[in-house]
Amino acid sequence: MEKILRIMMGPEDKPQAIDAPLGDYAGSGGRAMTSAIVAKEVPPLCHPLGAENKLVIAPGLLSGTTGAMSGRLSVGCKSPLTGGIKEANAGGQGAQVLARLGYAAIVLEGKPADDTLYFLYINKDGVKIIPDNGLRYLGNYDLVDRMKERYGDKITVISIGPAGERKMSAASVAVTDMELRPTRHAGRGGVGAVMGSKGVKAIVLDDTGLRMRPPKDPEKFKEANQTFVAGLKKHPVTGEGLPAYGTNVLTNVLNEAGGYPTYNFKQGRFDGAAKISGEAQAGLETKRGGLATHGCHRGCVIRCSGVYHDKDGHYLTKQPEYETVWAHGGNCGIDDLDTIAQLDFLDDNYGVDTIEMGATIGVAMEAGLLKFGDGPGAINLVKEVGQGTHLGRILGNGAAVTGKVFGVEHVPVVKGQAMPAYDPRAVQGIGVTYATSTMGADHTAGYAVTANILGVGGQVDPLKPEGQIELSRNLQIATAAVDATGMCLFIAFAVLDQPETFQALIDMINAFYGLNLTANDVVELGKSILKAERDFNQKAGFSAKQDRLPRFFQTEKLAPHQVVFEVKDEDLDTVFNW
Amino acid sequence: MEKILRIMMGPEDKPQAIDAPLGDYAGSGGRAMTSAIVAKEVPPLCHPLGAENKLVIAPGLLSGTTGAMSGRLSVGCKSPLTGGIKEANAGGQGAQVLARLGYAAIVLEGKPADDTLYFLYINKDGVKIIPDNGLRYLGNYDLVDRMKERYGDKITVISIGPAGERKMSAASVAVTDMELRPTRHAGRGGVGAVMGSKGVKAIVLDDTGLRMRPPKDPEKFKEANQTFVAGLKKHPVTGEGLPAYGTNVLTNVLNEAGGYPTYNFKQGRFDGAAKISGEAQAGLETKRGGLATHGCHRGCVIRCSGVYHDKDGHYLTKQPEYETVWAHGGNCGIDDLDTIAQLDFLDDNYGVDTIEMGATIGVAMEAGLLKFGDGPGAINLVKEVGQGTHLGRILGNGAAVTGKVFGVEHVPVVKGQAMPAYDPRAVQGIGVTYATSTMGADHTAGYAVTANILGVGGQVDPLKPEGQIELSRNLQIATAAVDATGMCLFIAFAVLDQPETFQALIDMINAFYGLNLTANDVVELGKSILKAERDFNQKAGFSAKQDRLPRFFQTEKLAPHQVVFEVKDEDLDTVFNW
Repeated sequence: MEKILRIMMGPEDKPQAIDAPLGDYAGSGGRAMTSAIVAKEVPPLCHPLGAENKLVIAPGLLSGTTGAMSGRLSVGCKSPLTGGIKEANAGGQGAQVLARLGYAAIVLEGKPADDTLYFLYINKDGVKIIPDNGLRYLGNYDLVDRMKERYGDKITVISIGPAGERKMSAASVAVTDMELRPTRHAGRGGVGAVMGSKGVKAIVLDDTGLRMRPPKDPEKFKEANQTFVAGLKKHPVTGEGLPAYGTNVLTNVLNEAGGYPTYNFKQGRFDGAAKISGEAQAGLETKRGGLATHGCHRGCVIRCSGVYHDKDGHYLTKQPEYETVWAHGGNCGIDDLDTIAQLDFLDDNYGVDTIEMGATIGVAMEAGLLKFGDGPGAINLVKEVGQGTHLGRILGNGAAVTGKVFGVEHVPVVKGQAMPAYDPRAVQGIGVTYATSTMGADHTAGYAVTANILGVGGQVDPLKPEGQIELSRNLQIATAAVDATGMCLFIAFAVLDQPETFQALIDMINAFYGLNLTANDVVELGKSILKAERDFNQKAGFSAKQDRLPRFFQTEKLAPHQVVFEVKDEDLDTVFNW
Repeated sequence: MEKILRIMMGPEDKPQAIDAPLGDYAGSGGRAMTSAIVAKEVPPLCHPLGAENKLVIAPGLLSGTTGAMSGRLSVGCKSPLTGGIKEANAGGQGAQVLARLGYAAIVLEGKPADDTLYFLYINKDGVKIIPDNGLRYLGNYDLVDRMKERYGDKITVISIGPAGERKMSAASVAVTDMELRPTRHAGRGGVGAVMGSKGVKAIVLDDTGLRMRPPKDPEKFKEANQTFVAGLKKHPVTGEGLPAYGTNVLTNVLNEAGGYPTYNFKQGRFDGAAKISGEAQAGLETKRGGLATHGCHRGCVIRCSGVYHDKDGHYLTKQPEYETVWAHGGNCGIDDLDTIAQLDFLDDNYGVDTIEMGATIGVAMEAGLLKFGDGPGAINLVKEVGQGTHLGRILGNGAAVTGKVFGVEHVPVVKGQAMPAYDPRAVQGIGVTYATSTMGADHTAGYAVTANILGVGGQVDPLKPEGQIELSRNLQIATAAVDATGMCLFIAFAVLDQPETFQALIDMINAFYGLNLTANDVVELGKSILKAERDFNQKAGFSAKQDRLPRFFQTEKLAPHQVVFEVKDEDLDTVFNW
């Protein structure tokens, strides 16, 4: 990770690859890297799909090492969905392989002179930029098959589907997993549209002949990693709940808590929740010969992923995540796991964010295009997105645009980005994160569900405003730092509850880089990332008034608790005062 | 004008009409009235289509009197297009009749409990709120015919077409002219969508049996009015250019100046300009038995309107305005007046803003949906809007949404509202108005074309940044004040150049109301209106960063002058420092 690969796409010259020194960006990884480059190099008022925007793809500080859980790949840019800065990260093999290839980041810059479609092929011998219009509008699965035929099965593919090529604001960037399936997505904020605007369909990585990145102090690193792994295995969430049932273990939990947004955020409980719960899903997967426990990248010890087979026992999709099951499930009134799995496959194949798509279909249901609960109708809508019909283009640009086009008032977005699977009225801490995050509504930016619902990292009453600001603030800071390491965010459960696991993480970084960071340095890192992102957003035109939930969360009571979002505006404005 | 009519549409109760006292709003008219009510009563962060927004319809201070030119009707709300405050005004008979009915404003409030469609009938005996789902999706022309059958031809109709019913952000509010044709529109900012969200299809006014509003000092009023009219007749723009050729007299002028935005703001001159100029249009109208000179309301002495007949000599539409001819003409590369006239008719009938629709079709052409110059294709697109197809819903929500849905970078909007017919690179003063107006890109908010191009009210080099801030600032202040009087903005040509005409306007107000206003009071009125609007917009989330043109105006040179927009950001931020 001693260099940055800059791909200049034009328009003046033919696309070319330049190996650039790290310069000011030395020591940055993941979200710290993507946000630093975007904040420094992208004019905040530029058009997200124009030549001035840049797409930055960066492994974390510990990616490509033998450290467990270090497989997150950050993708950053100015977002076409929110208009602000964006970092979305994905699991899969991308971060590890890119780091071993020596790149701290790939930056796609400029804009091609014409609409030729390109892909990159990167191995130990260098970088090739290859025009190939034959890839046009391929789904991610077919695209990967094409690349496998050409380059064998030792590759990792980072790609966009037709949604990204059509520059839809819900378009994701897909990353292949250990089985070379394009199932892990940097989903949020339309990062795939920016990749599409650069004319880049795929980045094919091959680290054959390259070794794990060596730590400065191998012994200390190994020891810290062992302590870290032991901590993850010991904690009930990362050692039991997530491996057994995946993220979808949350369906029953949130439904029970009355914070499961149902029928486009109309109520907090869904009658069909049990039918689509993680428990039901794991049972079905096992019965059909899929996998209920599975890792998305080498070095994962939590293994919250899985493999979902259809009724005939054939691979259909990876185990849909909780957010996906909710977005296409309870949010749309759909209680059938096979329907949800098909939607998950279509989303992955076309390359769209499952959260945004589920929220969008909920808005389309609200608009009367189809009825809540209409599974086949929902599948047809996502197919429209894949085909790029006029309706598909509306939906593929997300819930806010869909609401605007169909004149719908009840649209659950912040900064144009759809809310995830936690109603902010019944989980007020996550409401603070939705409202104030630099990313738009994003649960991963400060996962207050921990102390609000799960009793992890303390306890804060989810139905009351008290304590939520501080909770969200601290989580947003910690998350930004974790997102810089390349670590999967799920380590946070153990890190929040077990001081020795947090220390082990710091020890890993110190042993690897020969540093002496303290917990305080980690906090400062998180703050500095958030500050750079907030500054960018302000220059892009956001004021405090964008740090708000849609009005209906203050005016419409949520059943069963009959609550509204009660955190005051003036308190929201203090989240970034530290 | 001693009361306000508040129509409570629900949702708790059946719609009901309440006569309310003027209270704090006494002495306000037109834009001063609409902006005061919106600023005071509408939560800035509410959804524009929700129950909390209000649609305010207000005649000007001098409407309903014998004063010349006092026929503008202001329509205000929180805009679904810009997200900020909105005032759009229209000619036609509405202001006069409403004022004579005694109403200083009609305010549509709340939201009906179901999707029943209503219309209001107001005469000297009172107000009726009549449910009539048979009106659904009627075009404005058919709607007016229906009302004529029912109430005779002494009525004035304020209405929305299918675009407003579908809550499209480009939807206008139509007002009938002297011939009871729905040809005058409060076009900008989606005011028609807000009327649609209130479930009100039409407001039918009948002032039979009511008299002109009496001045406090009839003699002085008459005298001032005579001086005022003489001033208008004397000035070359209002006395010669506008009567002879209508607003479209500007086509040749702007094209010559190199500021005529062509092919979606790609160049500043259009080869086909002469074919669609006001001179060509007036000739054609006269030849076919239409009218090249015509007033849009009783009391108009400029008479810049006209009547456009088709090839067979039958009425097709009113004389398309310069902005319309440009939007559907040069901006789309269309040089055929009959095509443009058909587009104008369709826009009026469906109830959409001609500027927004023309700009939107330009963006659709940019996106490759059809070729520049494709007149039949453009007509088909507008028909899609009228039919409410998926494509029509995209287009009907304006240029910004259309650009977003189709991934287009080159979208000429400010605050989400499409730019009118003057390229801000070649007419830099109007660029300052586009950027900073509280309304989004709006030429009427501060018509710097005067001193930049027409040599009215001084001379400021249109290609240079010097002097543009002051020019735009003063015009924005003056315009806000004029918009409060109910006066047609075209009086400004004479008022700017002839001190005695300006004084006559002040004398009219003083004589009518028994006041002693000075020129300075008029300036203060304008400032106070702008201040209320700016405050609202800030609370709605606008920062200085929304007071900017799209980046391409700074990066792409405009032929023939090879200029970019050169007014500095920090200077734009001083427009409202007075």
